Amino acid sequence: MQDEISTGRVRKLITDRDLATLGSRVRKLSQNRVVKLLSELPLDQAAIVFRLLEKNESLAVFEELDQDTQADLITVLSRSQVLEIFRSLDPEEQTWLLDEMPSKVAKKIVAALGSKEMEGALSLLGYPRESIGRRMSPQVLRSRPTETVGELLGRIRASNSDNDVLSEIPVLTKDRKLVGKVELKALLEAEKHAQVATLMEADPYYSFTYEDDEKVAREILRHGELIHPIVDSERRLVGIVPLLDAARIDYHAAEEDHARAGGAEPLRRPYLLTSVLKVARSRIVWLLVLGISATLTVQVLEIFEATLSQKIALSLFIPLVIGIGGNTGSQAATTVTRALATGEIDIKDVGRVAFKEVRTGFAVGSLLALVALAIASAVYGFDIGLVIALTLALNCPIAATVGGVIPLVAKACKVDPAVFSTPFISTFCDASGLLVYFLVAKALLGL
Amino acid sequence: MQDEISTGRVRKLITDRDLATLGSRVRKLSQNRVVKLLSELPLDQAAIVFRLLEKNESLAVFEELDQDTQADLITVLSRSQVLEIFRSLDPEEQTWLLDEMPSKVAKKIVAALGSKEMEGALSLLGYPRESIGRRMSPQVLRSRPTETVGELLGRIRASNSDNDVLSEIPVLTKDRKLVGKVELKALLEAEKHAQVATLMEADPYYSFTYEDDEKVAREILRHGELIHPIVDSERRLVGIVPLLDAARIDYHAAEEDHARAGGAEPLRRPYLLTSVLKVARSRIVWLLVLGISATLTVQVLEIFEATLSQKIALSLFIPLVIGIGGNTGSQAATTVTRALATGEIDIKDVGRVAFKEVRTGFAVGSLLALVALAIASAVYGFDIGLVIALTLALNCPIAATVGGVIPLVAKACKVDPAVFSTPFISTFCDASGLLVYFLVAKALLGL
Repeated sequence: MQDEISTGRVRKLITDRDLATLGSRVRKLSQNRVVKLLSELPLDQAAIVFRLLEKNESLAVFEELDQDTQADLITVLSRSQVLEIFRSLDPEEQTWLLDEMPSKVAKKIVAALGSKEMEGALSLLGYPRESIGRRMSPQVLRSRPTETVGELLGRIRASNSDNDVLSEIPVLTKDRKLVGKVELKALLEAEKHAQVATLMEADPYYSFTYEDDEKVAREILRHGELIHPIVDSERRLVGIVPLLDAARIDYHAAEEDHARAGGAEPLRRPYLLTSVLKVARSRIVWLLVLGISATLTVQVLEIFEATLSQKIALSLFIPLVIGIGGNTGSQAATTVTRALATGEIDIKDVGRVAFKEVRTGFAVGSLLALVALAIASAVYGFDIGLVIALTLALNCPIAATVGGVIPLVAKACKVDPAVFSTPFISTFCDASGLLVYFLVAKALLGL
Repeated sequence: MQDEISTGRVRKLITDRDLATLGSRVRKLSQNRVVKLLSELPLDQAAIVFRLLEKNESLAVFEELDQDTQADLITVLSRSQVLEIFRSLDPEEQTWLLDEMPSKVAKKIVAALGSKEMEGALSLLGYPRESIGRRMSPQVLRSRPTETVGELLGRIRASNSDNDVLSEIPVLTKDRKLVGKVELKALLEAEKHAQVATLMEADPYYSFTYEDDEKVAREILRHGELIHPIVDSERRLVGIVPLLDAARIDYHAAEEDHARAGGAEPLRRPYLLTSVLKVARSRIVWLLVLGISATLTVQVLEIFEATLSQKIALSLFIPLVIGIGGNTGSQAATTVTRALATGEIDIKDVGRVAFKEVRTGFAVGSLLALVALAIASAVYGFDIGLVIALTLALNCPIAATVGGVIPLVAKACKVDPAVFSTPFISTFCDASGLLVYFLVAKALLGL
């Protein structure tokens, strides 16, 4: 089916202020098309289209938007519209939006809706930030081992839960402790009088409320669970995380990690729709940090200014030496940060990480040294070649070890390793590389 | 429940070659525990544990392993075990494993199993690499608009599809064209005699077989579909992608992107279990490329050797100038690569990207120039401060534009932007930064 109105045409109608035509056209579109349209328009125009929708339609569309567009849209809608939207959301969606708002605005919304209506969200907000407790869905259909298939299917039919959370049902003991999980498919195939206990998977995976949301999300994806139970310290079920929510948590985390690995804050809107100043703002902080910490390299070089003036050719290789050192460090940091994020390693593994990185650094450094010795000796003479080779062989193990250990230090200091590591490593590796380089040069060339 | 045997104890039993004890202990473990155990052990030990499992258990466990562990395990099992495993897999899982193997081994497996048994996988292999056609599940329960709820539910009960692909059923016309999708929940709630047409979501999202797998996976996650229909050019249904598969495709893509953004090939095994030489190998290529392309910076500096010897203080700022330039370029590349991956922009947007980046570069460059002017003038004198400020103001727009445009060029040349961009940008930005720096210095200082 063709779209009934193009995004370009919508933008034209908005610029022309022909909202009557726009409203009647937009109200004829399918819900999927409206969702797509809203994500393609700049925020101010998206808000206009959103206001033209009928009330029920607009609430349904809002639920379908991705979380970032939701958070953006909320900021430009009127207070009464915002309250209406909040009323229609699930508690974990309310929680997410409240987290994304300035805390002043969030407080006003909670006050306006009252503690009764916000009960679900308020209980989620009681869990620490970035814990899975905040991201779970608190309502959930539950079963008992002794329930019959017929009874449970009856309750599934009558429930108003979404389709996606019904594909697996947690099974609890009388005192709400998690003992199993039963698939909807198994229920449909089974005899009506069979007991749930005979069909359920016993001892399913589960997580505690306080666990890190991104880590739990990754485990859900790894195990491929449709529904992941979240329990308290007594192993009593307090919520579930559907696969889709896990996928979204992980997707969001990957987007942010990716942006930060490139030294920029994540853009929340599509790139071409984000203003130049906002793009610049997402990048400037890290450039300023880098620029100011780079004064360390200036200071190191100042120490060796006399050496440099004696042998000006040494300055030619400064970019090469720091480039290789910085990159060796950031490679190690990337691997270790990832291993930390997936839970493969922990702070206590610092010794094993350092030992592995010093050897890895030595392996790559030695090979690079051989290549450098061959090439640089041929072009710039054996003495320069030897200086560069020895610098690489010594500095690569240092850079790799520092790059591998810093994310663990960051984690121990409760700082996000992905954000903290990059500026620190590039500065440290640049400075250490220069230090090694000039010390080797002074020793070998007798300067 | 406590684990009945710790991973450490398993390793001990393997080292002691006490396989009889190990076998009887391992066969008593729950399937989830075995899966976890296999992913925690080094490959050779995991293979031993896997061989000790009973045949049915081992096939079930294999299906639960994550794809990388599957691919690793396959390489160390005997031929007859591999064939047995292949027989038990779904076509899209067979396809994935075949893709991960050396093509010689893959051909032997296909030959041994015969074209009849491999029919599903062979048809998937007919779609281009990295297309969603290769990753779809070819078998799927379908409905017709005129089918009654009772009939469809009967077929769902009788089907041997997995639980997760039953939560939504695609609805097709007589000539197999996709017209809708119906939720299992809606079927359970509806009257037995109602027609599917009255319950289905009309015009659902869908993708074509040839579309990029990672892009389709991201769209599935964005829309939150449990089942995503894949159609041919006539809009006839040829397969589906369940949410879980989409999440895994995206997870895998994010892992690879993350490693490559850090200048290393992704490690397939857990970091601490990977040997030093393998870790070194994942990093050395990029370091060699960087080292060799860094000779360009040596050549640029050689041109200005005379200038350098006249004013040795200029060499102090080389790391700072190239650090800022390189980072400005990689920030732009990260943003644009991401926007390309999510489909927000395409090759044709090169003009808009360049225009946006030149302005962004100018914005950050001007601010950095002011800071540099203030600090460097105070410490090293006004002339040096002015040279550095002007260099930053001129080089940041160049670096940002190059960084933004190169991923588009890579895409146009059919090279992966994430892999190709990093070495090229860092080399180019280093060289351009030095060029601008010394040209400005010569002009301003009259050298």
